[in-house]
Amino acid sequence: MLLKFISKVPNFVYETAQDSITASSGVTQEQLKAAVDAAVESTTTAINGDLGMLWMLLSGILVFFMQAGFTLVESGMTRSKNAVNIAMKNLLDICVGSLTYWLVGYSLMYGDTTNGWFFWSGLFQGEGADLFFQTMFAATAATIVSGAIAGRTKYSTYIIFSIVMTAVIYPISGGWQWQGSGWLTELGFIDFAGSSIVHSVGGWAALVAAFLVGPRIGKYVNGKVCEIPGHNQILATLGVFILWLGWFGFNGGSQLAWGGDDAVAASNVVLITNLAAAAGGLGALITTWIWYGKPHLAQTLNGALAGLVSITAGCGNMTSGGAVLAGLIGGILVVFSIEFIEKKLKIDDAIGAASVHGVAGVWGTLVIGLWGVNGDVGIGLFNGGGASQLGTQAIGALAYGVWAVVLSFIILFTLKKTIGLRVSEEVEVAGLDMSEHGTIAYPGKRDRGE
Amino acid sequence: MLLKFISKVPNFVYETAQDSITASSGVTQEQLKAAVDAAVESTTTAINGDLGMLWMLLSGILVFFMQAGFTLVESGMTRSKNAVNIAMKNLLDICVGSLTYWLVGYSLMYGDTTNGWFFWSGLFQGEGADLFFQTMFAATAATIVSGAIAGRTKYSTYIIFSIVMTAVIYPISGGWQWQGSGWLTELGFIDFAGSSIVHSVGGWAALVAAFLVGPRIGKYVNGKVCEIPGHNQILATLGVFILWLGWFGFNGGSQLAWGGDDAVAASNVVLITNLAAAAGGLGALITTWIWYGKPHLAQTLNGALAGLVSITAGCGNMTSGGAVLAGLIGGILVVFSIEFIEKKLKIDDAIGAASVHGVAGVWGTLVIGLWGVNGDVGIGLFNGGGASQLGTQAIGALAYGVWAVVLSFIILFTLKKTIGLRVSEEVEVAGLDMSEHGTIAYPGKRDRGE
Amino acid sequence: MLLKFISKVPNFVYETAQDSITASSGVTQEQLKAAVDAAVESTTTAINGDLGMLWMLLSGILVFFMQAGFTLVESGMTRSKNAVNIAMKNLLDICVGSLTYWLVGYSLMYGDTTNGWFFWSGLFQGEGADLFFQTMFAATAATIVSGAIAGRTKYSTYIIFSIVMTAVIYPISGGWQWQGSGWLTELGFIDFAGSSIVHSVGGWAALVAAFLVGPRIGKYVNGKVCEIPGHNQILATLGVFILWLGWFGFNGGSQLAWGGDDAVAASNVVLITNLAAAAGGLGALITTWIWYGKPHLAQTLNGALAGLVSITAGCGNMTSGGAVLAGLIGGILVVFSIEFIEKKLKIDDAIGAASVHGVAGVWGTLVIGLWGVNGDVGIGLFNGGGASQLGTQAIGALAYGVWAVVLSFIILFTLKKTIGLRVSEEVEVAGLDMSEHGTIAYPGKRDRGE
Repeated sequence: MLLKFISKVPNFVYETAQDSITASSGVTQEQLKAAVDAAVESTTTAINGDLGMLWMLLSGILVFFMQAGFTLVESGMTRSKNAVNIAMKNLLDICVGSLTYWLVGYSLMYGDTTNGWFFWSGLFQGEGADLFFQTMFAATAATIVSGAIAGRTKYSTYIIFSIVMTAVIYPISGGWQWQGSGWLTELGFIDFAGSSIVHSVGGWAALVAAFLVGPRIGKYVNGKVCEIPGHNQILATLGVFILWLGWFGFNGGSQLAWGGDDAVAASNVVLITNLAAAAGGLGALITTWIWYGKPHLAQTLNGALAGLVSITAGCGNMTSGGAVLAGLIGGILVVFSIEFIEKKLKIDDAIGAASVHGVAGVWGTLVIGLWGVNGDVGIGLFNGGGASQLGTQAIGALAYGVWAVVLSFIILFTLKKTIGLRVSEEVEVAGLDMSEHGTIAYPGKRDRGE
Repeated sequence: MLLKFISKVPNFVYETAQDSITASSGVTQEQLKAAVDAAVESTTTAINGDLGMLWMLLSGILVFFMQAGFTLVESGMTRSKNAVNIAMKNLLDICVGSLTYWLVGYSLMYGDTTNGWFFWSGLFQGEGADLFFQTMFAATAATIVSGAIAGRTKYSTYIIFSIVMTAVIYPISGGWQWQGSGWLTELGFIDFAGSSIVHSVGGWAALVAAFLVGPRIGKYVNGKVCEIPGHNQILATLGVFILWLGWFGFNGGSQLAWGGDDAVAASNVVLITNLAAAAGGLGALITTWIWYGKPHLAQTLNGALAGLVSITAGCGNMTSGGAVLAGLIGGILVVFSIEFIEKKLKIDDAIGAASVHGVAGVWGTLVIGLWGVNGDVGIGLFNGGGASQLGTQAIGALAYGVWAVVLSFIILFTLKKTIGLRVSEEVEVAGLDMSEHGTIAYPGKRDRGE
Repeated sequence: MLLKFISKVPNFVYETAQDSITASSGVTQEQLKAAVDAAVESTTTAINGDLGMLWMLLSGILVFFMQAGFTLVESGMTRSKNAVNIAMKNLLDICVGSLTYWLVGYSLMYGDTTNGWFFWSGLFQGEGADLFFQTMFAATAATIVSGAIAGRTKYSTYIIFSIVMTAVIYPISGGWQWQGSGWLTELGFIDFAGSSIVHSVGGWAALVAAFLVGPRIGKYVNGKVCEIPGHNQILATLGVFILWLGWFGFNGGSQLAWGGDDAVAASNVVLITNLAAAAGGLGALITTWIWYGKPHLAQTLNGALAGLVSITAGCGNMTSGGAVLAGLIGGILVVFSIEFIEKKLKIDDAIGAASVHGVAGVWGTLVIGLWGVNGDVGIGLFNGGGASQLGTQAIGALAYGVWAVVLSFIILFTLKKTIGLRVSEEVEVAGLDMSEHGTIAYPGKRDRGE
């Protein structure tokens, strides 16, 4: 994510114009034109810098709110006995992520010293709207993992993983593309707002974590897959609306600027982000209606999220129609992916995070190579661009997948063999809230001894 | 809603100035002044375009969030056994509305080819921040209906109605006023942000739908009116706060521009929108305290919403004091209207949508003719403007009422006689969630076999 | 809070430039430069005015949403039998606050006629984005009190207190600093966004109210302190996320401008607001882990809020590192403060409002005198600025404390001796919702006679 705008105090000295002013003699037409042109350009540049900063800050604020959305989706879609634990994990992600990304993460991602793979500029780099906006992305990458491993993971272990994720795993691979001179940028890879860089990295880490920590007790009984339903689908729905809302900042803010062409482009990003989400929700709704016989809420919610993930990479390189198609397929795909991971791989991803963020993240990365556009020029396999961009997209998607899987595995396997990933069976059955946090989410009359 | 801003790339060629530059001779004072004036105007126009786009986009994002508010208000104010169904209807509205309005709705509303009553410009019109903002209005109009008919309506039927509402009913009548050359615009009708165009259309459709689908089982027993309380008043309260929040975008964004006079005007719109909501909430609170003996939460929530609807038409044509009075009366009115529809008309509008959006929508439209202003000039009956504007407002309110009632009746009556509007008695008693969607909103321990 | 921006219609007459145009003779280089400079300055000033208005309006919209956050935190952290009452109090605060602050509050705070202690400009002063933004601050100050006295306070009494708070108590003392010529401004006191002016005033009023109304039945039994847990910690968590979100507007919007230096400054305010919140949450999390043996959700939530309050005064005068330290200490402090007030003072502050807003508010005010900066210059005791600023901060913090305690005591003691502060024992045990509002928050099957 190359920083497009230059934060600056408007400078009203028009050097171009002044260079031509050499004497108190009369002014020529050329001098007038040069002076006026320079004034307009300088003013517009300064104001565009202010507009860009405003848009990035507001977008960052929207992305921040996604933490609330994740909390609701994850707690709503799991058992109430673990809801406090979910809240504590999501709070931790934003608290830890804000601090680690400020301390080292930003520098590891956007630092100047580089070999194309690693970046660094010293501690405490980044500032203002830019650091704020980027911080929220790091926290998002971490929080994706939280839901997948709900209901059986030690809080202390999660803390260490959250620190490593926001301080190291996400920033390093993020720099490959968004620093602007990383190896994937050089290759021509496109990932506008992070289908791969944020979502698939989070999604694959979630899958590895769910695999290593093992399924919840009661999920697979005598080879049978049992549903463990969430406890509050209305909160989950509210969570998805909040995520959808925040995504307008996530994708739109990734324009990193506002003013002139950038205003038009960022508006279009928000528009097609909404179209893809709508198509994704509808895709999942229809798929479950056909497959299950009834339109299913949780899958429709996942479908809308998958639609959003599916357009995150391409929201700067899609037509409206292309976005609808990308989202629709993402929404259909996620239903099958969730079933596949749950029933064939027998990995217990409690809320479908690996499918929503990982699978749809890869799909969103690849679709640019299928029917992406660059302005009016097709760059995808099916719209005249050949297979070259698709190949590049595949390399990028693969690179982020390998990086996330390998790094997550090393960290989590080490944690498993040392302090352990998982709470005891008694704790799990009773719920993590009481043993890990000494409280429950919904104390009723009985819980206070009445 | 006439599109005021022109999205454009700043063009730094100052034609006015350049026209006067004919030679490389010296520059006159007039030429200097003309060149500088042209530069300032061009720069300001370009930046105002960028600002307007930013404001509309942000407003659209706020209006999007209203879908979450509607979901919470509607589910919180009805039984938990139908909460999943409510969530699925609201999700559907934004998914379907986003696609249909993009496909045909925008063109039917803002198309160029017209006889003053119908508009068209071809499929897939509209783009960027403008289409995004307008889409959210269409989804709002549809979603108003969802709550009124909660707890007994078939999901499949609702889908068809939602499609027709966002694709046809709302866009066509919306064009009468907001396209800019429709017959109501020509007549001098005022409806700044849609008291009639959005809310009363949704409200009257809700009334027709509630009438045709019939009351919930248990609502009217042996001629007695029974309260069917909502299941979660805190979620309903959160929903109203979200709607109130979103309304700042709904009304404020309807300025369709930001910069200079427009910035002042849009700020004022937001200010008086808040004042009207506050007065509406207080109006209902006091009314219920006097009438019921206790200040009542659900009615206070409806009062705040009614205050918002009451200022939606006039938020560009009201003083602060006028807005407070409009909202206050709207908040009082809604309490009586809900009682009247429930107890006298015996129509079971489950959440009072027809009163909040329909009755307050008409009131908000008419109040402009009572004490509306145009700048500093009174245009209402009671502030020196005579009865002319009031008559025009009445014609408009009536036109939208007739249109919504007739169209809704035709569609819904046809659906009733074909696929049916209503679920079976067994399904209704058990709750729609399990039979229509195969799940329940709050699976507890018992629901998972523990 | 001095209004920095001037709302205006851009004026394209460049008086500076025109003054030098005296004849239709040739233009000199000096005249060209003057004309262009004047055009740039005029254009930039006009646009900055528009940008500032946009930022303040959006910030006000975010601060409005804090009312929803307070509702969720307060109801989630208390018993369900009083949840409707909490919702009614928070709704009242925004309804009443919007009207009283518009009627008299703004004038009492920002009026022109003054002796440095009291201000006045007549009724109905303030307009547009400025009045809107300031109104939301008044409502916030009032709503802080609501949670502390939850579960036993008469609604009618609360209404009177809310009116006095938003119309008189908050505006008068607010003017001391934010009107721009008050006695605290003259003294050199710094309180950028209101650690003292809003939060400690609300917090001390909450403490006085909790003391005067007395503890809830069951809180102190035979000298033993009993926990009365909240009923929904997920809603409380959502509430804190909403408050955190709204705080970006609360602090960032207090820059009162956007454009050039102001854009950079406001962005930095938002950035360090987030860092302080993160540090506060982490500080409380770690403190409870050490002290209670487990990381505790409610205290972590309070820690994040305390972090926010701790940076509210200094968010314009802190480095990132200073903000993290301020927030961290605030988050640690709040845990001990809540225990101290609950167990040593035996005052039953139901949600810890006096600690979160009062104690952290004082801390946030003082920390400027410890390691605050003014640009690059240290103004605190520990960074080269000496003790002078610390003394001034202490005077201000003390002044707001004395004012809030004395005024609240007079009002509430009078109410106690006249209409009474407290509901009857029967009403309290049964819950305020049914007797005060005739309804309950979560009507289940039994509540409707099934």
